Amino acid sequence: MIEVVIIGSGNVAQHLISAFAKCETVDVIQAFARDKNSLTHLLDSNKITSNFADLKEADLYIISVSDDAIAEVSSKIPFTNKLIAHTSGSFSIDELDNKNRKAVFYPLQTFSKNVAINFKEIPICLEAKNKEDYTILEKVAQNISKKTYKINSNQRKALHVSAVFVCNFVNHLYQIGNEICQENQLDFDILKPLIQETANKIMKLSSNDAQTGPAKRNDTQTINSHLNFLSDQNQKDIYKMITKSIIDNGKKL
Amino acid sequence: MIEVVIIGSGNVAQHLISAFAKCETVDVIQAFARDKNSLTHLLDSNKITSNFADLKEADLYIISVSDDAIAEVSSKIPFTNKLIAHTSGSFSIDELDNKNRKAVFYPLQTFSKNVAINFKEIPICLEAKNKEDYTILEKVAQNISKKTYKINSNQRKALHVSAVFVCNFVNHLYQIGNEICQENQLDFDILKPLIQETANKIMKLSSNDAQTGPAKRNDTQTINSHLNFLSDQNQKDIYKMITKSIIDNGKKL
Repeated sequence: MIEVVIIGSGNVAQHLISAFAKCETVDVIQAFARDKNSLTHLLDSNKITSNFADLKEADLYIISVSDDAIAEVSSKIPFTNKLIAHTSGSFSIDELDNKNRKAVFYPLQTFSKNVAINFKEIPICLEAKNKEDYTILEKVAQNISKKTYKINSNQRKALHVSAVFVCNFVNHLYQIGNEICQENQLDFDILKPLIQETANKIMKLSSNDAQTGPAKRNDTQTINSHLNFLSDQNQKDIYKMITKSIIDNGKKL
Repeated sequence: MIEVVIIGSGNVAQHLISAFAKCETVDVIQAFARDKNSLTHLLDSNKITSNFADLKEADLYIISVSDDAIAEVSSKIPFTNKLIAHTSGSFSIDELDNKNRKAVFYPLQTFSKNVAINFKEIPICLEAKNKEDYTILEKVAQNISKKTYKINSNQRKALHVSAVFVCNFVNHLYQIGNEICQENQLDFDILKPLIQETANKIMKLSSNDAQTGPAKRNDTQTINSHLNFLSDQNQKDIYKMITKSIIDNGKKL
């Protein structure tokens, strides 16, 4: 049995606790939460602490807190030479406190509270400072996911930036689509099959082959008619910039 | 039996021919293609013509050609007082030739050759100049889709602009994510579960509730570190603009 302590109570921490609860060879023996009530729906209250001095000895500590708190939290763990991993896409492994063995356990997914997720399909990006530590991380990760990857800190940063484009920015484009629908008394649901198919297509086709629309065709007439239609300057600016990017990309091919 | 003639041989025309082939009360009696060979895998060659003079009489003509050819094609149909629909998201109903009854039959989806599609889930946006014509359109549409909507030309334009944001622009963000992966020796497949979940979440959550990431948190440190990481000026510009838009949107809430 590999004993794990989870430090944090946010979306990622909660999804990890739920995922580990289902597996046989990893045991979450304790979790740290500033507000113990935030985790009582997932763990027995005697397994939750809000005091670093009460942390138990474990094989692995997973720090899942906001990036700007990771360094401080890692310095407060009252042990030395323990394996400590954070779950951040952008925080460097080296900024963890030096007194313990450093690692990264980064699940590449968008987590929202109250949205169930199949952890088995989530890629977990792992990094450690030596082979033995990597083996422990990998065992823990393979208990909850079919997809584990050895990813160094620079690659992880690249993944995190890519994730911002394909997830956070994509969701903002959904937001703009929704706004345009609302302004025109249209149900946003009409767009949902299109949104699904756009995601489905990229599973099978290259992004170049999947690209359609007026920018891809360099259809100036439709592009100008869309720009005239949009009244919001921010929407216009985004429309112009991405259209130009698609057209320029077409010239490179 | 409602008799339909399809004019055009592109992605939409081909997907329509395939969809109508499966239904019992609509018969595609003929299709027009400049190059007859482009449709022989879908229709008997004696049902394909490349000569407007050979067009047969039908209950409905569906013009599925590029926007800049619709007006000319509609003027070449050698009949009067027939029901003529185009399939474009942005072309006005009024620009169809006056000699026939005007209509729109706009399936809101992204069609690629060689990617099969379940037409039943595709919203079809319909517009006609009178109730009788609308009834014919609706009957035809309901044969291939569960989702038909009465959408006027202004709303259709709004939908088309929205579709550019949630489909064409989204795919371009996938393209950028792919480029960043390639530059860093990362398999784009690592991002695919995230892409799927981002689309899945918007089926259930509002775009505001689904929004995550450094811009949503106004996490300046991560945003700056991402901007430093990006070397491509175009990627930097898009990153800055959408980040600002997400932050500004947060201030409105």
